[in-house]
Amino acid sequence: MKDPRSLLISLFDAAVAAADPALLVPAYLPDPPKGRTVVVGAGKAAAAMALAVESNWPGPLEGLVVTRYGHAVPCERIRVVEAGHPMPDDHGLQAAREILAIAEGLGPDDLMICLISGGGSSLLSLPHDAVGLEDKRAVNAALLRCGAHIGEINCVRKHLSAIKGGRLAATAAPARVVTLVISDVPGDDPAVIASGPTVPDPTTAGEALSILTHYGISEPASLIRHLKTKACETPKPGDPIFANTSLSMIATPRKALEAAARLAAAAGVKPLILGDALEGEAREIAKALGPMATSCARHGDPVDPPCVLLSGGELTVTIKGDGRGGPNAEFALSLAQHLDGNPHVWALACDTDGIDGSEDNAGAIITPSTLTRAYRLGLRAEAHLDDNDAYGFFEGLGDLVITGPTLTNVNDFRAILIVSD
Amino acid sequence: MKDPRSLLISLFDAAVAAADPALLVPAYLPDPPKGRTVVVGAGKAAAAMALAVESNWPGPLEGLVVTRYGHAVPCERIRVVEAGHPMPDDHGLQAAREILAIAEGLGPDDLMICLISGGGSSLLSLPHDAVGLEDKRAVNAALLRCGAHIGEINCVRKHLSAIKGGRLAATAAPARVVTLVISDVPGDDPAVIASGPTVPDPTTAGEALSILTHYGISEPASLIRHLKTKACETPKPGDPIFANTSLSMIATPRKALEAAARLAAAAGVKPLILGDALEGEAREIAKALGPMATSCARHGDPVDPPCVLLSGGELTVTIKGDGRGGPNAEFALSLAQHLDGNPHVWALACDTDGIDGSEDNAGAIITPSTLTRAYRLGLRAEAHLDDNDAYGFFEGLGDLVITGPTLTNVNDFRAILIVSD
Repeated sequence: MKDPRSLLISLFDAAVAAADPALLVPAYLPDPPKGRTVVVGAGKAAAAMALAVESNWPGPLEGLVVTRYGHAVPCERIRVVEAGHPMPDDHGLQAAREILAIAEGLGPDDLMICLISGGGSSLLSLPHDAVGLEDKRAVNAALLRCGAHIGEINCVRKHLSAIKGGRLAATAAPARVVTLVISDVPGDDPAVIASGPTVPDPTTAGEALSILTHYGISEPASLIRHLKTKACETPKPGDPIFANTSLSMIATPRKALEAAARLAAAAGVKPLILGDALEGEAREIAKALGPMATSCARHGDPVDPPCVLLSGGELTVTIKGDGRGGPNAEFALSLAQHLDGNPHVWALACDTDGIDGSEDNAGAIITPSTLTRAYRLGLRAEAHLDDNDAYGFFEGLGDLVITGPTLTNVNDFRAILIVSD
Repeated sequence: MKDPRSLLISLFDAAVAAADPALLVPAYLPDPPKGRTVVVGAGKAAAAMALAVESNWPGPLEGLVVTRYGHAVPCERIRVVEAGHPMPDDHGLQAAREILAIAEGLGPDDLMICLISGGGSSLLSLPHDAVGLEDKRAVNAALLRCGAHIGEINCVRKHLSAIKGGRLAATAAPARVVTLVISDVPGDDPAVIASGPTVPDPTTAGEALSILTHYGISEPASLIRHLKTKACETPKPGDPIFANTSLSMIATPRKALEAAARLAAAAGVKPLILGDALEGEAREIAKALGPMATSCARHGDPVDPPCVLLSGGELTVTIKGDGRGGPNAEFALSLAQHLDGNPHVWALACDTDGIDGSEDNAGAIITPSTLTRAYRLGLRAEAHLDDNDAYGFFEGLGDLVITGPTLTNVNDFRAILIVSD
């Protein structure tokens, strides 16, 4: 076996590579059409996906994609626009308008390639003609305030949008629409990722109204009226408008975990994928996953060492301190504390997008000596955890993982490696 | 396969049976000695263990065990005393004195059977002669206040005690000492369970002093002075005083999980033991274990359905609301919310001691219809969770698991059952 630290880095690299648009997009490109080809898209990976399309496309091509600030890569034929995320801004609004205009201009011989990834919902934000921007934002904020479930919020959003919930595909019809998706949501539902601009919407305007009623939201009146009109209804599954559309899920958290699992197995380390969509408070989840690792070392359950416990999903941090660091570093710090120097366990926790929260690191690595090395440097694990300063802790140790933005995103990646005696 | 609900109850019953003193103790009883046999012990299972000894002992027998209020069972020859837990009280103090006196009276031909289980540390509380009771309590409270680790607290406690950290065995020498232990601690270290009254103590008085210094505890001065004397040192591993002692771990969380795993396998359901010592905030851990179940159903990872994810350990609840319910019911409620009616997943979470926190239930069961049944009854999962009222939620549904005190304790038992399509 490689040394544990290098192996963990290799596993993370394999997971990110399994979500790399440059490597994945070419195999999913359709044959060129008789007519024009346009490329549109939205999401954190949109620019990288666009570059992969134009680098591999045999014919003429034009288009526009919108990505998050800092996530652009230079394209020659496709315009790349940066916009606000997670709060939509005017750049996103304008980009959405232009993308709709591009779709409107297409005829039956034309092809629209639509590139969708996480973050697309905020980046591709355009209210329906009958809905004011401020009204839409007010309802959105009200839903967030009263703790509505993300599925409920998306249902309302789709029925107030000019582009989501299949409306982009409806606008492009009768052109052929080929959608390539990189998933960052639990369950990988294409109707959920970026609110599914090219995907039939199974939810109804009636449901959107019930949700607002349920949460006691009765204003603005004009918006409520709009939800009672026929115009606000999204295109439904089975609608002939989708006859000439296809969709491929080119990368998912699960595929990234499988790539890491294959590499681990090849290195003689038994992989166990715990799940691709773990959630929960980072420091708490470490208290459950740590003992799973300890159980491997002590009892050979859930899997015999040498082994690696792989998991994806998105953990959260409830910020109480003043420190720096995202959920991956905080998970790693809490895990180190809980393992308390267990000599058999190494671990890596990183965001596959390369940015763990708001700092410059993807995540962090822990080793059996993490706590003793920290102690010698005067770094107190407990104090750093109390202050939400996992970044400072691992920076001091030299155990941050820094990759820069990877220009893709299949959520967090955690690998806990257990070696034999 | 049995119906899922009955199967889950059977798995829990199997786990509890695997920790039942009446079933386990007989096989571990030594041959009667030439001289007297005395039975002493402390812990939540002490009375049930004592009854199992006297029901199966061929010769004369006497003794005293101390258990928690409500955990006594009538014994004929062994006295059973109830005392305070988790806060020690005078009953525990007096019982500890009597147990030491019993041990003191033993000779080389005598046998002491020592019955240890969780809770024994509080129940068997007696300060060293040189230490005042109030002083010992003050230091204990100070350590708890400043967030000292349980290992640190136990190290200090052992060096202030007249009975812990091997001192009971030292007092009984040269009599033979046979200790039977039911473990409720991660790692099943016999030196930790009930602070190991018959087990060599690897920690030192010097370490106890360093811990107090580390947390800035410099009073009471008399107590600090005591920690610098030779008399306060506990007997160490290798001390000849332990030559005539033996210890058997008759029940552990792991053995309980294995019993449930065997039963599941016999029922055609693949068991996967995730770990025997999971910790963390109950509602958060559900957000990690729920997606593991979903991953089984969707991807066949970490294990193919029909399967059951088994785990032990002790979750916690940070109380913010006014409701009723312990960590098992709260875990189950959060899990139901997270699974959101997933048609493939059933689950049970119960404390093996039969009491989940402070109510009369061992825990609760969830089914795919938990949320819809609750909705019809006007029970809102989210509101009950916010109010820490999982008991009220499952009481309304008729989905509490009620066994009464089981008179043993190998911590929590969680079984998440995933069925095929």
